[in-house]
This record gives sequence, C-alpha cells and structure tokens, in this order.
Amino acid sequence: MSENHQKISKAIQYYKENYQNLHEEFLELLRIPSVSTSEGHKVDIERAADFLVNKLSGLGFDKVSKHPTPKHPIVYGDYIVDSEKPTVLIYGHYDVQPPDPLNEWQTPPFEPAKRGEYLFARGASDMKGQIWATISALEAIIKAGQPGLNIKLLFEGEEEIGSPSLDAFLESHKALLKSDFVLNPDAGMIAPHKPTIVYGLRGLAYFELRILGPKADLHSGIFGGVVANPANVLCKLIAGMHDKEGKVTLPGFYAQVRDLDEEEREELSRIGLNDDFYKEMTGVPALSGEMGYTPIERAGARPTLDVNGLYAGYIEKGAKTIIPAYATAKISSRLVPNQDPIAVKESMKAYLETNVPDTVTWELEYMSGAPAYINGEETPGLDLFVDALKETWHVEPLMKLEGGSIPVATSMKKRLGINSIITGFGLPGDQIHSPNERLHLPTHRKGVEVLIRFFA
Amino acid sequence: MSENHQKISKAIQYYKENYQNLHEEFLELLRIPSVSTSEGHKVDIERAADFLVNKLSGLGFDKVSKHPTPKHPIVYGDYIVDSEKPTVLIYGHYDVQPPDPLNEWQTPPFEPAKRGEYLFARGASDMKGQIWATISALEAIIKAGQPGLNIKLLFEGEEEIGSPSLDAFLESHKALLKSDFVLNPDAGMIAPHKPTIVYGLRGLAYFELRILGPKADLHSGIFGGVVANPANVLCKLIAGMHDKEGKVTLPGFYAQVRDLDEEEREELSRIGLNDDFYKEMTGVPALSGEMGYTPIERAGARPTLDVNGLYAGYIEKGAKTIIPAYATAKISSRLVPNQDPIAVKESMKAYLETNVPDTVTWELEYMSGAPAYINGEETPGLDLFVDALKETWHVEPLMKLEGGSIPVATSMKKRLGINSIITGFGLPGDQIHSPNERLHLPTHRKGVEVLIRFFA
Repeated sequence: MSENHQKISKAIQYYKENYQNLHEEFLELLRIPSVSTSEGHKVDIERAADFLVNKLSGLGFDKVSKHPTPKHPIVYGDYIVDSEKPTVLIYGHYDVQPPDPLNEWQTPPFEPAKRGEYLFARGASDMKGQIWATISALEAIIKAGQPGLNIKLLFEGEEEIGSPSLDAFLESHKALLKSDFVLNPDAGMIAPHKPTIVYGLRGLAYFELRILGPKADLHSGIFGGVVANPANVLCKLIAGMHDKEGKVTLPGFYAQVRDLDEEEREELSRIGLNDDFYKEMTGVPALSGEMGYTPIERAGARPTLDVNGLYAGYIEKGAKTIIPAYATAKISSRLVPNQDPIAVKESMKAYLETNVPDTVTWELEYMSGAPAYINGEETPGLDLFVDALKETWHVEPLMKLEGGSIPVATSMKKRLGINSIITGFGLPGDQIHSPNERLHLPTHRKGVEVLIRFFA
Repeated sequence: MSENHQKISKAIQYYKENYQNLHEEFLELLRIPSVSTSEGHKVDIERAADFLVNKLSGLGFDKVSKHPTPKHPIVYGDYIVDSEKPTVLIYGHYDVQPPDPLNEWQTPPFEPAKRGEYLFARGASDMKGQIWATISALEAIIKAGQPGLNIKLLFEGEEEIGSPSLDAFLESHKALLKSDFVLNPDAGMIAPHKPTIVYGLRGLAYFELRILGPKADLHSGIFGGVVANPANVLCKLIAGMHDKEGKVTLPGFYAQVRDLDEEEREELSRIGLNDDFYKEMTGVPALSGEMGYTPIERAGARPTLDVNGLYAGYIEKGAKTIIPAYATAKISSRLVPNQDPIAVKESMKAYLETNVPDTVTWELEYMSGAPAYINGEETPGLDLFVDALKETWHVEPLMKLEGGSIPVATSMKKRLGINSIITGFGLPGDQIHSPNERLHLPTHRKGVEVLIRFFA
C-alpha cells in the first residue's frame, strides 16, 4: 500500500514537472478541427486520430492502431500489466461539435486561448480535455512505475454524430476489448470541488421535420390568404407538441417513462442545483419546464422535447415578402429510462398524422436515437474510483442522473456486457456545444490527480 | 383619328422591325444585378440607373437626370409635346428582389435565358420587363411621329425596400412632376388574354420578431427541461396569431377593415380565379385561408398575416443538440382599406405584451409599412387606357382588387394629388420574388402594343 502511495506521489510529481510539455501537446490536439458532422473535415478527423496513435505508441502501448470504419476511424491501444489483474476499458471521442455560429466566439474555436483560469477552444471540455486528462495520468503513472490494472483505450471519431460505427466495432472486436468495466469521462462535475459520478443518462431521439407547401416561394401579396404558409403550419405543429403544463403531447410519449422513487429525488435534491444556479448559469430571466418537478429533476430525470434548429424563407438582412415554399425544424427529445427511441419516433409520427393539415405535405426524418442508460447493479472499480475522488477533493462524490445522452454506455452494456463508470472533469459552465467552449484548468489538473490515484 | 390610326400602325410596324435590337438592350438591363436590399449591389444600382439615363437621352427626352437620394437614385426624364395636352406620369422601379435561394434557379438569375415562350431572369417581370415595355412603346411612337400626350417618366431604385426616399422626392419636385394622372405598370394581368386594371391594392406592415433566451446556445441534454427554448416559444407565439377559422387574432386587427360590398364581390367573382386555378398555379394540395371568403377575395380584399422567414439554432446538415440562444421571425401583414399600418404595429405589440412568457425577452422591429390604396373616383386617362386594352385583346378588361402592395400609388395620391392607373403585363405564374422569375414574351409584346395605342 505504501509502495502504492510512493508510486502515486512520484506520478503526481512527474505530472507537475512535465505539465508544460503535456499542455503544449494538448493545444496541438485542440488546434485540429476534427468536426465529425461535416464532410469537409474528413482530413482533420484523420489527423486527430493519427495524433493519438503516435502519442499512445510513444507511451509504449501495444496493438496501437487506427481501425477504419465506414465513416471515421476508431483508435485503439492497450497496456497490459498482468492478465490476473482487472482490466478497465477507457472510452473517449476525439471528434467535436461544429463551432458555428463562428462570429460569437471571442477567439477562434481552433486557436486555444487562455483567459484567467480557463482555456477556450472547441473540444477543450467535450471531450479532448477529458481524453488528455486520461493520457496525462497514464503517462505519469507509467513513468512512475506501472499501472495497478490493465488499460485498454478506445477513442472514436463519431460521437457527435451518434456513433454510427461503434456498435459494429464492439461486436466484431469482443475479444480485443474484453474488460471488467468501462471508464467513461464524457460526463462532468456539477460544480468545482463537487466530484460527480453519473448513474443514469438520458437517451435521445433526433428528428428533422419538413413541411412542404407551394412548389416555389410565392409573393405574399398575390397569394397571401389563399395558400397555407408552411412556416406558420410548422409553428402551429411545434406549438402543439407541449401542453400548458409543459408536458409533451405526443401520443404515448410518457407511456414507458420510469418514475423517480423517493430515494432518487432525495439524492438529486442533495446536489442542490437550485433555480438561481440555473438562472445564473444560463442568463435567462426565469426558468421553465414541466410542472411538478425541480430543475435538477427536469434536467436529468424527465424527458424533454426541444427545437434545435428552425428554418424557412428569407433570413438575411432586410425584408422579402414571400410565402416560403417549405419550412424545416430539427427537433430532438431527451429520453429517460425506460423510453424506447423507436417508440418515440412512432408517437411523433402519430402526432403528425393527426395534426398536419391537408393544405401541406410533410416529411419526418429520424436522424438518430439512443435509449437512456441507468447503472443499476454494482460496477467493478466503482469503489476504487470513488476513493480516488475522495482522496483528491476530500468530499463525498455526488451520484446524479445526467441530462445529456451517452448512448455509448448503453452500447458497452449491450455489446460487451460491462457497466460504465460515467464521470469527467468538465463543468456546467463549460459551454460545450456552444460558442466559447472552455475548460477550467485547475479542475482539469485535479482530474488528472484523480486518474493517477485510480490507475495506481 | 385616321391619322392617329396611321401613327399607331407605323409605330407597331417600327416595333416589329426593331424588336431584336430592343430585346438585346432589354437583356443588357436584366444582366445588371440591381438588388436594392443589399449594400453589396450599390454599384449595380448606379449602373442600372445610368443605363436608363442613357436610353432616355437617346430617345430625345428632356431634363433627363439621375437624382441622388439618401440611398438609391431616382431617374427622371420628360417628353413634352404640347402644354395644352394632358400629361401622364409613368412610374417604374429598376431595382429587383434578392435572387436567393440561388441553387433553386435553373439558369443564373442575372443571365437571362429564353425557354419556350418565356424569358427567365430576376426582374424580367418585376419590373424591368414593364419598364422596357414602356420604353419600347415610347421609342416606337416617337419614331412614328409624336405621342398624343405629354410623357413624364420616374424610375426609382428602392421599391423592393419600401421606397424610403420617394415621398421626399415627390414633395420636393411637385412642379417638375405635375401631371394629370399616373400610369403604374407594376401590377399585372390575371391570365394571358385577360387584361386587368387594378382599382385597389393591399397595404403592408412588415416586422421582425426576436425571442431572446439563454446568453448562449445551451446543451439540450444538460439544460433541456430547465430553460424555455426560444424557438419553441416563437412557434407558440406565431401559432397563436391565427384562430381556427384562419382569422388573425392580434387585438383590434380587423377594427378598421373596410368590408366588401355586394357589387365588388360580384366584380371579383367575374375574374373567375377558382380553387383549381390557385392550386395549379402554386402546386399546393389544398387551399387555405380565412373562412367565409372566396380565394380571390382572400387574396385581394382581406388582410393576411404571413411568416416570411424563420431562423433559430443549427440549420446546416446533420444534428446539433442545442437549445438556441435566440429565435427570429420575419412576419408581414397585408392590409386592406382602411387599415393603418401603425395601428397594426400597435396590435402586434399588444399581442406580444400579453402573450410572451416571462421566461424569455423579446424585441419587435417595425421594418416598413404602407396603407392599402383604393382608386375611388374617376381617373383621367382611364377610359383611353381601357380602349387601348380592348383594341389589343378584343375583350373587356377586368377591374380587380390586387393583393400585392403598391404604396407608390398611395404616395402619388398623397403628395401629388393624382390617381394612378395600376396595370401591367406580368402574369400570376411569373414567379416574381421567387427563383426562376420569368416573363411571358407574347403577352409582353401585346403589352407594348397597348402602350403604343395609349400613347398615340
């Protein structure tokens, strides 16, 4: 044990001494615009994958390779110390969200900039920063001696587009990936000094709805009042998807929803994210949402339906007096246990079949979906990880239900039959998926310490 | 009279013989992208104005000049034959609507292309084509002898942005512009072989509504269910602007609306634009609009409210799971006599003050407005023009209420105290304000004949 302690302090020492070099490498990774949603960045995706391959090889990992998939490659490498010891499969994704709207960034998204305690860049928090915390801790522990368990790393490049290739890869590499549990640092902490482990995650069903009217844009003076305006129709349909109490009206939407039990509500309330926290975090004048639930319950434990994008007609400067030929909306629903995304798709279809007027035609595209994930029974390694968090922050980690989807955890359970420890060292204010995404460096450094302790 | 007939046939002869040259010049004019809405085309606007100045000078017009305004210049020129004779002020605008969405054009908007009987280009119908019909007829009649009345021409470059400089120009040039009536060919015919004169025009009130939510786009997983989604809120507000019967719900919206009397409904029904006509014209599966009125009444004689543009969040290819920071809509209302656009602005504000939830903030921009115009009493020159239409098409011209706004007619009445003959030789299928705007050449040529007869 004390030998272990020596290893830990040696590793932490190493991390402190080599922080600058590791940080420089991190900046290199952040400079690669590995946006997975747009074809234009295919080359950058490959560059990011190669960057990781080289780094892992340099650290002495085995079987390091870039596995091609129909879309973006998966990077794998492992570090086996002793086949008798437990094995952790560490998951990460090196792709990032699109940076737009670009003009709202204070500094360019792919030119990392330090302001105060924060590092600003797309992917700084979600999740290149988390990948880098893992790699830094591994480098430190390897230089200080040996990890206390076998390490397997899997970094994909398709998380932000719904991981289309992951399931197939897990299925076809079961032997290679065989592990006792997954460490997935793609979640985050609820606040600085409040280490958090997520025991449940919302799922997702993502749609694009298109309302088609006239064959071309029409002059609103000549045809206004005669034909249905697809934009007005779309708004009416979207408005009808919620009732006065903030409940989703899609038929059967709540049929499979697993209700919160008292214990969960208790534990969630302990997190203490109140109205003021959310107001301050988001800058809205007042909160909103389903009646009868607290903000933290609404954000993590209740299903939602949000418009993510809206387009019709003329959106440039100035005025154009047209009736748009069509109107589109990107709409996604956050799902809770035990909602089935396909069932949600069906209720969306049912809603539209009943409510779309015969004055227009419509198309519904089901873009991606994943069920919610709940970490029921005991997860090996969980106690060790909790200890590592405690030793680093000297507080009891919080167990919470997370709002964001990590379909990956579901896939790992389904394909490899192992549970995930879902955690991470990002903060709610990191503005992931938004302009000016940032990483809180002090928290990030503490995260590396946690991982060093855990790997030791 | 027979002398007049000779003049007419000589002029028509001239037009036939010189059609090719005149057409080539027309194409030159169409090639100039004189888009008034965007600053980038300032140079092209000037080029279009210079083009007209040169043409009029070439025809022997007097006082030909390009009058600067705060924005785009007004081109004026006159041809006075005899101060005892009546004077017509012919209005036109040489600016055009923006061509976007560009990718929906079969051939580039500013490279005129002939397909079948149609000439495709932005402005071909609205209204460079109408300006050119006027100029062609004037050239023909001048070469054949003398016009039978004094001609004054006024071409502005700001019609598509609401003619911000016109009123001031009319006020400050009353003497120069003194005329007995206006000929305004910015309307159109309801069908080929159905010459039309408009005796009423709808007005317009154009708004941009902005709904402001969180200070930046938020991750819909982490914050979905906690904050109001500006896009959802915007949709709800827009949906609420119409009731089940297709009536606009803005408080007091119909207070000033002048109802149609039986005679008008009679005359309008005579136009015989039935459901099938509108369905065929627009390609919609079924018509829509205010209950209790025929399509032609809804299109011309009843006020409407349409969304012209809608934007929020992520509208590129693929998926982005965000709650947008804001959502905007361009909304415009077509007004009928005796609605006051300012009153409509007030009712829009009143609606928003009552209905916008306190979970977001909002901004309403009143972009432009003009009251409807109705040509009540006798207009000098009207009988002559009706005769010219009859002689050319051998049918009784239709008197109709037009849906589109021509605020210019209101200004002419208000500033110069003269009525307008509102007509034109465009067709409902011309797709003005849309991709693939076109001009029906045979109808256009007949239009030139009408104008030759009228000017003779």
